[in-house]
Amino acid sequence: MSLKLFFAPGACSFVPHAMLELAGAEFEPTMVKLHKGEQRSAEYLALNPRGQVPVLVDDGEVITQIVAILLHLDAKFPQAGILPASGLARTRALSTLAWMNNTVHPTFTHVFMPQKFTDDDEAQKAIRAHAAATYRGLLGEIEALAAQASPWITGDKPSALDAYVLTLLRWGGYAGINPEDFPASWALVQRLAALPPVARAIERERLQLNVYSQ
Amino acid sequence: MSLKLFFAPGACSFVPHAMLELAGAEFEPTMVKLHKGEQRSAEYLALNPRGQVPVLVDDGEVITQIVAILLHLDAKFPQAGILPASGLARTRALSTLAWMNNTVHPTFTHVFMPQKFTDDDEAQKAIRAHAAATYRGLLGEIEALAAQASPWITGDKPSALDAYVLTLLRWGGYAGINPEDFPASWALVQRLAALPPVARAIERERLQLNVYSQ
Ligand SMILES: N[C@@H](CCC(=O)N[C@@H](CS)C(=O)NCC(=O)O)C(=O)O
Ligand SMILES: N[C@@H](CCC(=O)N[C@@H](CS)C(=O)NCC(=O)O)C(=O)O
Repeated sequence: MSLKLFFAPGACSFVPHAMLELAGAEFEPTMVKLHKGEQRSAEYLALNPRGQVPVLVDDGEVITQIVAILLHLDAKFPQAGILPASGLARTRALSTLAWMNNTVHPTFTHVFMPQKFTDDDEAQKAIRAHAAATYRGLLGEIEALAAQASPWITGDKPSALDAYVLTLLRWGGYAGINPEDFPASWALVQRLAALPPVARAIERERLQLNVYSQ
Repeated sequence: MSLKLFFAPGACSFVPHAMLELAGAEFEPTMVKLHKGEQRSAEYLALNPRGQVPVLVDDGEVITQIVAILLHLDAKFPQAGILPASGLARTRALSTLAWMNNTVHPTFTHVFMPQKFTDDDEAQKAIRAHAAATYRGLLGEIEALAAQASPWITGDKPSALDAYVLTLLRWGGYAGINPEDFPASWALVQRLAALPPVARAIERERLQLNVYSQ
């Protein structure tokens, strides 16, 4: 068995990265420097033609998409608590995961890479400003989840949802949003970051949790 | 056991709608007229504060997000073939499903509802034109999947992926894209629509498959 994760520092790949560490999995972390355009190299495009992280390679099989990677890892490491095991708790967690992935995450893409949506400079500025406001509202929805966490969003074990909160709240800093405006989320993120396996992923990515004040 | 699906004609809710029919499930279909703004009524917002379809209500439990609804139905009706049962086939199908849901579907939202991304009229036009071109490219990726279908995308059973192709290709018509430009996808969609359970969902939604020539 061999597992390899292609990740970029600070990117959404942090979610499977943290889960691999939490699962105690043996894996080979491989860094892709997005700011240097390494995701568009011929070599990387041969792996993932869409030029994105994360990519998980499991015994030579290439797996893309966070949701599929997490469900694959959940089936492989059922004790890790990546998602609740079954029933309504699992369905609810999957609903929140899907929403983070198809709504919150793409909203940030509009802030960070508005050039993906138009070539027009003025329109890019309009998109970015609108998305930053939308993003603040979505972090408000996440804050309501974090406020009910006891101590983690899905209950007594940290799951993929908590790791996604870390990434999404951290990105808020780049959208001009202070993580301290969302105290329950910010406390959850700091608690998560303090767990030794998660701290290893953070250390490998050299992440600063609060990029707002930079 | 009681199952209730809130759907809108022609919307993404077609995917769980078709799957419920394919599974032979007993369920109560409830129509939400998006063009009349019914998704923003106080009653509907009490059900789903995000004001979107689909919503599945299973014995009083409210479930949102297509991906979570499909995984919930897959656990409930394991014989229905909503997704491949396990292993790499399941992981691959989940990857494609997640991509349709987080990339292809939101790209169409930029064509259909550019006002979600900016209040500026000119910027909305720019977004719509850019997204229509991106959408054509994404339908090209789907065409490659459909070209390898034998006879369905995941193999010998129609799955949620085939139903999502129907919805996404049909939406192309509203983006000025002729479904016949994608012959493998178009053939797959017509084959799917001819299955009696799927035909029932189409009939209930009063869907015309090719809206391009309208
Ligand atoms: N739909 C993909 C999204 C992945 C994604 O957005 N990756 C970003 C980093 S957060 C990326 O690789 N961007 C590089 C680029 O677009 O050039 C998933 O859920 O895995
Ligand atoms: N992320 C949601 C998206 C659902 C969605 O986009 N629903 C659309 C119809 S395709 C909707 O209800 N739109 C109504 C509106 O936005 O007012 C999912 O995957 O279920």
